[in-house]
Amino acid sequence: MNFKELASTYKTPLYIYDLDYMSAQYKELKEAFKGRKSIMAYAIKSNSNLSVIKHFAELGSGADCVSIGEVRRAFLAGIPSYKIIFSGVGKSDDEIREAIQKDILYINVESEAELGRVELIAKELNSVCRISIRVNPNIDPLTHPYISTGLHDNKFGVEIDAAKRMYIRANNSEYLDPVGIHFHIGSQLTELEPIYESAAIVADMVRSLQSIKIELKFFDVGGGLGVKYNNETTIKPYDYAQAIFSTLKGLDLTIICEPGRFLTANAGYFLTKVLYEKQNGSKRFVVVDGAMNDLLRPSLYKAYHKIEPITESKSELSQADVVGPVCESGDFFAKECMLPTLEHNDLLVVHSAGAYGFGMGSNYNTRGRSAEVALKGGKAKLIRRREEFEDLIALEKEFLE
Amino acid sequence: MNFKELASTYKTPLYIYDLDYMSAQYKELKEAFKGRKSIMAYAIKSNSNLSVIKHFAELGSGADCVSIGEVRRAFLAGIPSYKIIFSGVGKSDDEIREAIQKDILYINVESEAELGRVELIAKELNSVCRISIRVNPNIDPLTHPYISTGLHDNKFGVEIDAAKRMYIRANNSEYLDPVGIHFHIGSQLTELEPIYESAAIVADMVRSLQSIKIELKFFDVGGGLGVKYNNETTIKPYDYAQAIFSTLKGLDLTIICEPGRFLTANAGYFLTKVLYEKQNGSKRFVVVDGAMNDLLRPSLYKAYHKIEPITESKSELSQADVVGPVCESGDFFAKECMLPTLEHNDLLVVHSAGAYGFGMGSNYNTRGRSAEVALKGGKAKLIRRREEFEDLIALEKEFLE
Repeated sequence: MNFKELASTYKTPLYIYDLDYMSAQYKELKEAFKGRKSIMAYAIKSNSNLSVIKHFAELGSGADCVSIGEVRRAFLAGIPSYKIIFSGVGKSDDEIREAIQKDILYINVESEAELGRVELIAKELNSVCRISIRVNPNIDPLTHPYISTGLHDNKFGVEIDAAKRMYIRANNSEYLDPVGIHFHIGSQLTELEPIYESAAIVADMVRSLQSIKIELKFFDVGGGLGVKYNNETTIKPYDYAQAIFSTLKGLDLTIICEPGRFLTANAGYFLTKVLYEKQNGSKRFVVVDGAMNDLLRPSLYKAYHKIEPITESKSELSQADVVGPVCESGDFFAKECMLPTLEHNDLLVVHSAGAYGFGMGSNYNTRGRSAEVALKGGKAKLIRRREEFEDLIALEKEFLE
Repeated sequence: MNFKELASTYKTPLYIYDLDYMSAQYKELKEAFKGRKSIMAYAIKSNSNLSVIKHFAELGSGADCVSIGEVRRAFLAGIPSYKIIFSGVGKSDDEIREAIQKDILYINVESEAELGRVELIAKELNSVCRISIRVNPNIDPLTHPYISTGLHDNKFGVEIDAAKRMYIRANNSEYLDPVGIHFHIGSQLTELEPIYESAAIVADMVRSLQSIKIELKFFDVGGGLGVKYNNETTIKPYDYAQAIFSTLKGLDLTIICEPGRFLTANAGYFLTKVLYEKQNGSKRFVVVDGAMNDLLRPSLYKAYHKIEPITESKSELSQADVVGPVCESGDFFAKECMLPTLEHNDLLVVHSAGAYGFGMGSNYNTRGRSAEVALKGGKAKLIRRREEFEDLIALEKEFLE
């Protein structure tokens, strides 16, 4: 990948996505599930650029959405309504209404109170809403606390007992059609065992519902397949699918899988330019033009991202913190990273930036967000232009008297 | 404050700023420094809405800016060029160029390498750039690591020895005019001692420069005065000013103070609506329509914000986590907060949200950012309209083929 040329054409800081890599990941995962009917519903939150979603749409992907904004993105990018799922712990009435009107595959319901709202709104619309219920299997996913979602002290999903009550209520309602069951125990999963255990619990729930004549069609296993940021062991898609299949004996269900990070994380690169080197006491800093407003993961999760220098420098490597211009000590990309001496305008490539990168970006410190570029068959194409100052003040300028 | 009416007029989630409170804070601080010439340079990063900046401009405030975007905001809002300072650890060449062309009060230089860039660009422009140097006094500010900035292992400022070399170099340059000295040891300071110690170190530096005929005009004490989020002890502005004055005996300097949080934090309220209550096992959750994309501080810093319910509910209080719709366990406003049973559409007021609130907001999960409303003399006025879906996709829609 010619990062120098990309930096020269599109300037820095810059997000670059390799769509061919995304295709390869998509195909590997879809292939792993070929023993059964399946829909890969791309988790838009991981990278919501319209052109990225469209790329997945062209591969046959569905969409897992967590806001009505994401549902609209899915439609705009060409994902068919019958492959769109609306999940999330807090849906507003307006969002529920629009999702029902748009006739998406189903709404993933996350609480009894939400079920009540959905029923009420479906009734107002004189419509029947297909739903799935997110079950919380109370399994520890062995991941970062902020991206762990399958334990009782998490806000997500409902307990098995509550879910059963909710299915019975939905099945008895004129306005609700329970078609699926969902679980998602966390993100960046690197262990197969918790996934298998969760799937087994949820599959038993499906059987138990069958015994009371509630027949579900969709078994939604969520997402969360881990990727290599550093030296993590990861789960093979084939093993993942087989573990899930092994819990479904005797059940005729379409599997819904909601991959996000798995498809996009390692397809993405964040390109930033060196502004200065500086030394404070024994501490070396490389100051770059990208910042926490562009890529929040190191600051928010202490996440590791590999840093690759693009430089003519042949100097010895030494430890440096890679930091941005934002006025917070939390504004860093890497701590104690081995780097050669760098010059003004040298480039650093921050790897694995395709998921939860641009999408968590802000305008903190009145910094415009980066441009985004997609690569396909070796060709680069702008897919979002850089934010300019005028963009940042557009919604408040008119109120300045 | 009639939060119900505000919610009904402007919808939720919503940021509300009490401009009268900001005035009172500004005046108290300015008054504390009346024994000397001073400029209160509002730290725009704490709340960068143009109407908020304009409010401070009308009170006579200057502006502390950390990006050229903030400098442009300051100009737009009517702050005069001779009260504008440009600080920050990573300034790009374009930013330095524009700051010089705009003839602001001075650029706060944070490294030897930056001093070189500033000199080079001033030379290209055949101009003289007024500078100040940010000195790192190596004093522990006793605050959160992410907002501590005055230790050697922070990226900010330069050591005393390096600063001295830089002043000599600047003084010998045709293109640089060293007019000030700056220090800022951290944010949300609640102890006076570290401020006094830092000021004393920096004042000695001023004397030492005088002895070699380098006469500075501005003593820039940064910002960082702590505020009460919960039960913090805080520093009285009068004591703060006196502590600084006591270090400046025999020196004729204009004091520059850069208050941000002190002026805005407790002037701000984040208003959010209850969507559902839910129970997972023994754990109670109140799900609201605001989220970490609106107010990141609890998630990023585990920051405490007082939560006040607006409800008819007369039920007993019990512990609940207040969480948002974003699909992360890190999406919360409060943990184990005592609240009555809440109904759909009840309101929660998140206090102390005026600083580092809206400005750190993102569009994560394709959520539009809140509207912002200012209150002055009891009257409410929209100062930024709510982001709509079309705003979120405006910069990428044209590239969707």
